[in-house]
Amino acid sequence: MIAKQYKNMLGAKSAIREMAAYGAKRGKEIGPENVFDYSLGNPSVPVPEKFTKKMISLLENESPVALHGYSPTLGIDSVRQAVADSLNQRFGMEYKKEHIFMTSGAAAALAHAFRAVTVPGDAILTFAPFFPEYRFYVNLTGANLKVVPPDLAGFQVDFQKFEEMLTEDVTAVLINTPNNPSGIVYTTETIQQLARILEEKEKAYGHEIYLISDEPYREIVFDGVDAPYVAKYYKNTITCYSFSKSLSIPGERIGYVAVSPSCEDAELIVEMCGQISRGIGHNCPSSIIQLAVAECLCDTSDLSVYEKNAGILYDRLTKLGFEIVRPGGTFYMFPKALEADSQAFCKKAMEADLLLVPGDTFGCPGYFRIAYCIDTEKVERSLAAFDRVAAMYRK
Amino acid sequence: MIAKQYKNMLGAKSAIREMAAYGAKRGKEIGPENVFDYSLGNPSVPVPEKFTKKMISLLENESPVALHGYSPTLGIDSVRQAVADSLNQRFGMEYKKEHIFMTSGAAAALAHAFRAVTVPGDAILTFAPFFPEYRFYVNLTGANLKVVPPDLAGFQVDFQKFEEMLTEDVTAVLINTPNNPSGIVYTTETIQQLARILEEKEKAYGHEIYLISDEPYREIVFDGVDAPYVAKYYKNTITCYSFSKSLSIPGERIGYVAVSPSCEDAELIVEMCGQISRGIGHNCPSSIIQLAVAECLCDTSDLSVYEKNAGILYDRLTKLGFEIVRPGGTFYMFPKALEADSQAFCKKAMEADLLLVPGDTFGCPGYFRIAYCIDTEKVERSLAAFDRVAAMYRK
Repeated sequence: MIAKQYKNMLGAKSAIREMAAYGAKRGKEIGPENVFDYSLGNPSVPVPEKFTKKMISLLENESPVALHGYSPTLGIDSVRQAVADSLNQRFGMEYKKEHIFMTSGAAAALAHAFRAVTVPGDAILTFAPFFPEYRFYVNLTGANLKVVPPDLAGFQVDFQKFEEMLTEDVTAVLINTPNNPSGIVYTTETIQQLARILEEKEKAYGHEIYLISDEPYREIVFDGVDAPYVAKYYKNTITCYSFSKSLSIPGERIGYVAVSPSCEDAELIVEMCGQISRGIGHNCPSSIIQLAVAECLCDTSDLSVYEKNAGILYDRLTKLGFEIVRPGGTFYMFPKALEADSQAFCKKAMEADLLLVPGDTFGCPGYFRIAYCIDTEKVERSLAAFDRVAAMYRK
Repeated sequence: MIAKQYKNMLGAKSAIREMAAYGAKRGKEIGPENVFDYSLGNPSVPVPEKFTKKMISLLENESPVALHGYSPTLGIDSVRQAVADSLNQRFGMEYKKEHIFMTSGAAAALAHAFRAVTVPGDAILTFAPFFPEYRFYVNLTGANLKVVPPDLAGFQVDFQKFEEMLTEDVTAVLINTPNNPSGIVYTTETIQQLARILEEKEKAYGHEIYLISDEPYREIVFDGVDAPYVAKYYKNTITCYSFSKSLSIPGERIGYVAVSPSCEDAELIVEMCGQISRGIGHNCPSSIIQLAVAECLCDTSDLSVYEKNAGILYDRLTKLGFEIVRPGGTFYMFPKALEADSQAFCKKAMEADLLLVPGDTFGCPGYFRIAYCIDTEKVERSLAAFDRVAAMYRK
């Protein structure tokens, strides 16, 4: 008697992964260099050399029994302390190691955070457009994901709709800034206004509302963009982080939960994450990877290519008549499609071997996502394909 | 509103970890060399050099973007194929890569297997003595763990009790051979008899009963011991494996689920594991660790020390009057305590700086576990401490 719940999920395959699979197939037909695959958010720049050197040094010099031994469930103490120190130094926070829980990437961080501060039947609010996996992450905790409609003017927050939807059953609000898929960074004003409303509602309802801030793109912020550290503005903030994008190591599955020191029951929540781990088989991320990222907490890959690609695409696409909110970070942008049906639009784009993901996937039909984490040379070559697509709509 | 379910679990801390923490504290007082810490199942021999060399070679020679890129959710294809090939070669099975799902160790493997073939409310049967984390693994899926009382004569299976407890609500049976904590390996006869009963009950109830075989100690089997490959004997077998013990890399979190090709819905179950991953934040194990273990599928650490330690302890302890079922593998043995209250017995042993875990922890009071994955030199020095404990009971 296999579990139907998961069997049924197989029908709802990821549109992004399907697009990527098509891209691989098409690449075999016409050469991969001729397929402009903007579907997948896979970093395209190498990890800092420091990481590789640290890995090799650990392998060459450490006692293998100690190096590959069990990490404590909450993470290696020295690593947790180093994460706390780096956040304190960079953002003026006061984390202790007791506020840090090491995880296998942001997906695991979110899986723990949701379970720690919600119970089945609770509602979790998030904002369109949003990373589609959120729905699966939340559904399988037994909580309900409710989606605040998008602020199409700037992909910040539609506060009126947010207040309406922030009902008493909401125990957590999930944000993602810098945002996948919009590329937008929430401004200080947005975060402050969010915090004000959350505080009011906490008082009115007599219970905490945790702000779960998913920040895998925190380090990819373009020049001059206001990018506040969310946990500074709202006390009940749980920050979920991944090194996947900043260090270009998505396959190594490493990240953390940082529970704000001012959070209600902060240290208890971290301890609870350890218990949640027992139930979901997480345990802890790889020991050697923990030790290696601890060396690189103030480093990043050379992320400048993403800003460069963003500029090239933004300039040409706006010239071609696309409406785009200029991205402030990440390696995504989210233009309005040239017809109301963005799935039809993305199908047309495929005729020009341009692989784009329809906004429907992100709870925001009528738009499409470009994941421009590819070589700049290829971005430049893709411009002619965008020209062709725009021309199809000028007929 | 934090989730009470997990908060309450904090009260039930692991007796094993608490004993280990005491050992570390006591070590600071009298020197760690004078504390005979038999509490933790942490491998004491190094990983094969081949693993370390492969890791370094990957780091030095591979493109970092590819090396550290996302693994597919089900695991890297070539790694899944290599795991299938090695099982086929060693055990005469017919696994394809479609039957293999790479996981972050055995805990993650079990978390997926339970969710794939049971639904909340189902019962999962296991056998005392058993690894205490099983209770947490199962409880948090919503299924109920039911424990068949021990066969104290040999720590095989009490088939009469098993048949009585194998009621219609049981959809999975969980076994662990070689066994933690008893060190016993199920014989071919035991597995055959298990399979017979399961087949009968499947027919009687008209639904599958999956056999989930947790095998992290599969490679640690002592000379001449009959150690059948479980999946050969029962078609609906899901094998959960970890490289933690065979390669001494518990901190690297790597293992797999292998669904028997003859299993009902075998490939579907593997695909479902990918969906379960989305819900529990597992995603996939570290890419580089997957690639490195794929090089070592027919290798192990030098595991001979465990058999040597087993022999030394068995000989002395039986001479001292302990009743012990001779272990056939692992690095555990499970003697009868010298008084009915094994917690009191283990407290007394602490006076001789001998750290043992009471059998109550494993659902089998009156016994205690020795985890003899420590240096042989220390095992030899510990014998005097066992003498002292035995002497306390001779007064």
